[in-house]
Amino acid sequence: MAIHYPNGKVYTPKKEPLKIKKKDYSFSNRGKTLEDELNDANEYYLLNDLAVIYKKPIPIQVVRVEYPSRSSAMIKEAYYRTPSTTDFNGVYQGKYIDFEAKETENKTAFPLKNVHEHQVKHMRSVTKQNGVCFLLVRFSAFDRYFYLPFEQLELFWDRMLTGGRKSIALSEFEEHAIEITPKYAPRIDYLKIVDNLNV
Amino acid sequence: MAIHYPNGKVYTPKKEPLKIKKKDYSFSNRGKTLEDELNDANEYYLLNDLAVIYKKPIPIQVVRVEYPSRSSAMIKEAYYRTPSTTDFNGVYQGKYIDFEAKETENKTAFPLKNVHEHQVKHMRSVTKQNGVCFLLVRFSAFDRYFYLPFEQLELFWDRMLTGGRKSIALSEFEEHAIEITPKYAPRIDYLKIVDNLNV
Repeated sequence: MAIHYPNGKVYTPKKEPLKIKKKDYSFSNRGKTLEDELNDANEYYLLNDLAVIYKKPIPIQVVRVEYPSRSSAMIKEAYYRTPSTTDFNGVYQGKYIDFEAKETENKTAFPLKNVHEHQVKHMRSVTKQNGVCFLLVRFSAFDRYFYLPFEQLELFWDRMLTGGRKSIALSEFEEHAIEITPKYAPRIDYLKIVDNLNV
Repeated sequence: MAIHYPNGKVYTPKKEPLKIKKKDYSFSNRGKTLEDELNDANEYYLLNDLAVIYKKPIPIQVVRVEYPSRSSAMIKEAYYRTPSTTDFNGVYQGKYIDFEAKETENKTAFPLKNVHEHQVKHMRSVTKQNGVCFLLVRFSAFDRYFYLPFEQLELFWDRMLTGGRKSIALSEFEEHAIEITPKYAPRIDYLKIVDNLNV
């Protein structure tokens, strides 16, 4: 016997509803760039009095400026310059922190052409001054993050200079870098690694 | 009797020549801006493996970019943004160094309107993280330089906020800041003060 609703329509049991996998947004990167994620982490550190770390502005060579009104300056011609240092620096509990952040779509290795020679030189100088210096790499295809201490980066860099491979294999990151597991807040808690390394 | 040159012109002894004071260029600032002088000092520190300190690029908001050729980008519209931090930062023997540099033509005092509130906030955060933080002021009229530790700057800042004077008198610099005497290389050796303060 068919069951009827009060309005006369026949009741038909629904099929099992489509299982929509609820994405846990709190742990996802929501399509953010690595730079955005690190800015989020730095904002978290700053607001919680944990560290003062900023991304440096991109260096720009200004050639021509106009003044449409008395108070405002409009740059009409300018060019990007090659940065001579790394992306991020700041202070964490008296320690000087300095790092470069890079993401790659590559699934097997991080190409070293993403790092410039003057940046390696800069990181070497910082390390000499006892700064905490590292490369932070995101393998975007897997949403995996690695903290590679400069001392390790330098070994791979020198391997390239002496005719070896021009990239660092993902498996080498697994062996020589420290993986950062995304968590709630901040998502990319890279200073935790500094703590653990006790550098 | 008048003396004549071979060409018949009368010889007239010249007047005492104008005394041109020879400037000692090695110790002078040669009309350099304070920023130039500090960049010189930082270059000296870097080349001699003493410290790694850079001026941060000026933050610029890029609105429109054109590509006149495949490889070059030309910025056609951009605006200066207010910096949220200080001018210079870096590392010196493991210590995080962070400072703002200002010059004034004023002969009696340094007007505090040259420092922004967010910079004071930044310096407070850096001090909490045990960074070495200070204001470097040049009184250009006298070619005098002062290193004012943030803790001192904060006292003058708070005095202003509680209705007191809106500047720091030169005499107050003489009393509460450390004067930097220009020397040969680097001319403005501000890290010497960090050594002496043993911060």
